[in-house]
Amino acid sequence: MDFFSVHILGCGSARPTGRHKPACQVISLRGKLFMIDCGEAAQMAFNRQGLNLSRLGHIFISHNHGDHVFGLPGLISTMALLGRTAELHIHAPKELRAYLDVVERLYCEGIDYKITFHEVDTKSHQIIFEDRSIKVWSIPLSHRIPTCGYLFCENTGLPHIKREMIDAYNIPVSQINNIKAGAGWTAEDGQVLTHEMLTTPPTPPRQFAYCSDTIFRPELSEMVKGVDLLFHEATYPESLLYRAKQTYHSTAREAAEVAKKAQAKKLCIGHFSARIYDEESLLKEAKDVFQNTVLANEGLRIDL
Amino acid sequence: MDFFSVHILGCGSARPTGRHKPACQVISLRGKLFMIDCGEAAQMAFNRQGLNLSRLGHIFISHNHGDHVFGLPGLISTMALLGRTAELHIHAPKELRAYLDVVERLYCEGIDYKITFHEVDTKSHQIIFEDRSIKVWSIPLSHRIPTCGYLFCENTGLPHIKREMIDAYNIPVSQINNIKAGAGWTAEDGQVLTHEMLTTPPTPPRQFAYCSDTIFRPELSEMVKGVDLLFHEATYPESLLYRAKQTYHSTAREAAEVAKKAQAKKLCIGHFSARIYDEESLLKEAKDVFQNTVLANEGLRIDL
Repeated sequence: MDFFSVHILGCGSARPTGRHKPACQVISLRGKLFMIDCGEAAQMAFNRQGLNLSRLGHIFISHNHGDHVFGLPGLISTMALLGRTAELHIHAPKELRAYLDVVERLYCEGIDYKITFHEVDTKSHQIIFEDRSIKVWSIPLSHRIPTCGYLFCENTGLPHIKREMIDAYNIPVSQINNIKAGAGWTAEDGQVLTHEMLTTPPTPPRQFAYCSDTIFRPELSEMVKGVDLLFHEATYPESLLYRAKQTYHSTAREAAEVAKKAQAKKLCIGHFSARIYDEESLLKEAKDVFQNTVLANEGLRIDL
Repeated sequence: MDFFSVHILGCGSARPTGRHKPACQVISLRGKLFMIDCGEAAQMAFNRQGLNLSRLGHIFISHNHGDHVFGLPGLISTMALLGRTAELHIHAPKELRAYLDVVERLYCEGIDYKITFHEVDTKSHQIIFEDRSIKVWSIPLSHRIPTCGYLFCENTGLPHIKREMIDAYNIPVSQINNIKAGAGWTAEDGQVLTHEMLTTPPTPPRQFAYCSDTIFRPELSEMVKGVDLLFHEATYPESLLYRAKQTYHSTAREAAEVAKKAQAKKLCIGHFSARIYDEESLLKEAKDVFQNTVLANEGLRIDL
């Protein structure tokens, strides 16, 4: 249960193609699922990946363009049909609310769970959600409408128990939570076993940043410093830079510049324009700047 | 170009499964496309079938349940992205209008084509659309909300020219339209060639009826008398008749009863419940009553 994975369910841009579906990703962390963006047919992709809808409690929407939200009505309906009762939280720029309101009014009569809308301020970099496992920060982006990315920072976990020490010194199971929380143990013969002798350090906390859609903003790197994985949109190749600027998108080279400046450990590029067939050249372009880059693809899972 | 085909793009019910997608069909008639219902991901299925969006001018919606309409926002957006300028006509019960209005207001700013909404009276059986090729009738159905099916009646075409007669008597090409319209021809030697000598009769007009979603209504058969193909929903097997009645759906046997009473030439059953894995038993159940039955399936094309 100690994994932190990012599932790519859709990584195309506005117009779906035979190659790519609209934007949607799912983070799986310690048994919980978090969705980022919800393009059309997200629920089908979710199902295909073998993910469990009942583990999904929070959806984070970057901005109110159709290719990032048209999967919400179907997902919400299916959750109701499956008998969901747990609250569903949707975090999004305020522009989404009008759409959700009409979907709830027209199609959600009698559903047995509550949908709570959390308005995200797209202009500030702040913690917008936290629980025992994670903190989620908003990342202001620059697109044609108010847009923000999200930074998922795992909380530091507890140290790991050395099983062999527990066995060797006959330490009662009832003491394990105390030891994880910092305690040591005194053995029957009076030997003092320190906390450090009984445990190994916790897994270092992992971080994932999602930046889509956005025009090139090198200053983003400050907010995503040192992340284990950066997803950054790369709608166009550098040869279509004018088009990227026009439409407030980025090129593959620009995505790599952000990753390099941020000293990210890994970069995943996506949100590919329907016009782009040669994704390998996007990859090459990014790798020339930041070597550890991969292309997003439907069904790809990246383990942090 | 003289074909009349029905493409099944989705034939599941409310909850999509790995086996079936939400409701959507496309009729291809003499080079034009007509869509019936537009469940989530309809545009992807449309694309996968190699159909051409620019040939689609009319969409007919049976009722305002999500699994029949959640594909509209994406389809409308994609048409705009492809540079559509031709008007798009959506025929539907009035309940859909509020959803379309908000989709247009929030997601269609600056699109270059007009969307015209035509309210369909779900209580009357009447012609709701006609052009040179076709007449479309509404078929009142009984579901939990106002719902209607559609009957597509091809207009009688023109007679076919006997190519060999044209060649043998050196009849000028300029006369062909006159002859098709009913004229004969007098040859150079004075021989009178009647219209009947120069032509073979037009292809008999074909009819397709779409009845979904509905509880069993044997009187439907009067409105779909003698159709070449009847699509009738069969959400459940007869063993779940109580559930069909509860939810205003039909069983496979009931669908077949309508086809038999209507003396339809062929029956296609679909709108399968997500709970039903054994579709062969649905087929058997229907065939026991009406032999010429087929199961709907994504990608199936039936030529009339």
